[in-house]
Amino acid sequence: MTRKIEFWYEFASTYSYPAAMRVDRVATARGVKVLWRPFLLGVIFRDMGWTTSPFNEHPAKGAYMWRDMERICALQGIGLVRPDPFPQNSLRAARVAMALPDDAVRGVFSRAIYGGQFAEGADISDPRFVADVLAQIGQDPQDVLDAAMTEANKTALREQTVHAQSLGIFGAPTWRTPDGELFWGNDRLEDALNWIDATQG
Amino acid sequence: MTRKIEFWYEFASTYSYPAAMRVDRVATARGVKVLWRPFLLGVIFRDMGWTTSPFNEHPAKGAYMWRDMERICALQGIGLVRPDPFPQNSLRAARVAMALPDDAVRGVFSRAIYGGQFAEGADISDPRFVADVLAQIGQDPQDVLDAAMTEANKTALREQTVHAQSLGIFGAPTWRTPDGELFWGNDRLEDALNWIDATQG
Repeated sequence: MTRKIEFWYEFASTYSYPAAMRVDRVATARGVKVLWRPFLLGVIFRDMGWTTSPFNEHPAKGAYMWRDMERICALQGIGLVRPDPFPQNSLRAARVAMALPDDAVRGVFSRAIYGGQFAEGADISDPRFVADVLAQIGQDPQDVLDAAMTEANKTALREQTVHAQSLGIFGAPTWRTPDGELFWGNDRLEDALNWIDATQG
Repeated sequence: MTRKIEFWYEFASTYSYPAAMRVDRVATARGVKVLWRPFLLGVIFRDMGWTTSPFNEHPAKGAYMWRDMERICALQGIGLVRPDPFPQNSLRAARVAMALPDDAVRGVFSRAIYGGQFAEGADISDPRFVADVLAQIGQDPQDVLDAAMTEANKTALREQTVHAQSLGIFGAPTWRTPDGELFWGNDRLEDALNWIDATQG
């Protein structure tokens, strides 16, 4: 399977949650491998002049998003609670995701973080929660948390965020095809896969 | 056919263009009548603290939108040029749409305005262009333009915009179901129709 799609996601992003829970299943069924690309959307939002989520800045947009998430999660058969506070501090989870050995493990870890946050109300900035998730997925918590906090790994996450911005990414989730097309939003995954079918055969 | 969907649209909105060009065809095929609801998104944007389109405020978002529009319009088989200036002043077109006798005529008029603007580069604030469109669709241009400029019609458009805001609408296009569910974006029309199927039988 050489056809690939990049999945650019932010752990605190609401719509990245249903996207993360379905992307491996949907893409694999169409013969496309998922490259999990965590980044820090807050850094990009600050450059756009926002100090918090646009869903907090604009109450109508926030009310719509939470209702839309209720509908989407119900259809997808996954739970939904509102994280408190929202948005969560996603730095630790993103650093750990960067430190993991490959996309398969990164996917398993990321789904567990999203499920804990959005289905169970866990605080994803809590190192004990992240350690529990690592243990559950068969990783050594202390080894991975240590690796996540090395300067090299912190730099790698910073560079991945700068790279996202240089690719034109301004929101999450964003799907990116091998020929550089961006599709923004959970609901555009199928369009991105259709693009790959049409251009890569 | 008693099943209905409200189509809330803004003439200057880019994604409202492919939405307008397909909504009657797609909804009618599923046994749903379209209620065309023009409103002025600029008024709502000003309340959100924006002085121009978010696609102008944020260059990465704007670059993405224009590329996305190219892909969407190509798939849909409709042309695309970038209006200059963007966004266009949509007040006259919205007032005329309000003044038209029913949804069927409003749909025909609105598609012609969108096609002129986004496929041919017409200035939709130009009264001659609007008059030409009215003549092409079999309306008396002077009668309709006079009706559009009455105080009663101007007030009706203002009230429709206030009503949109009171419904929680913050962007265009927005689809609204009879039970009050909102779906924001051209790409959510099918979700809105699925909702109507699931809730209205």
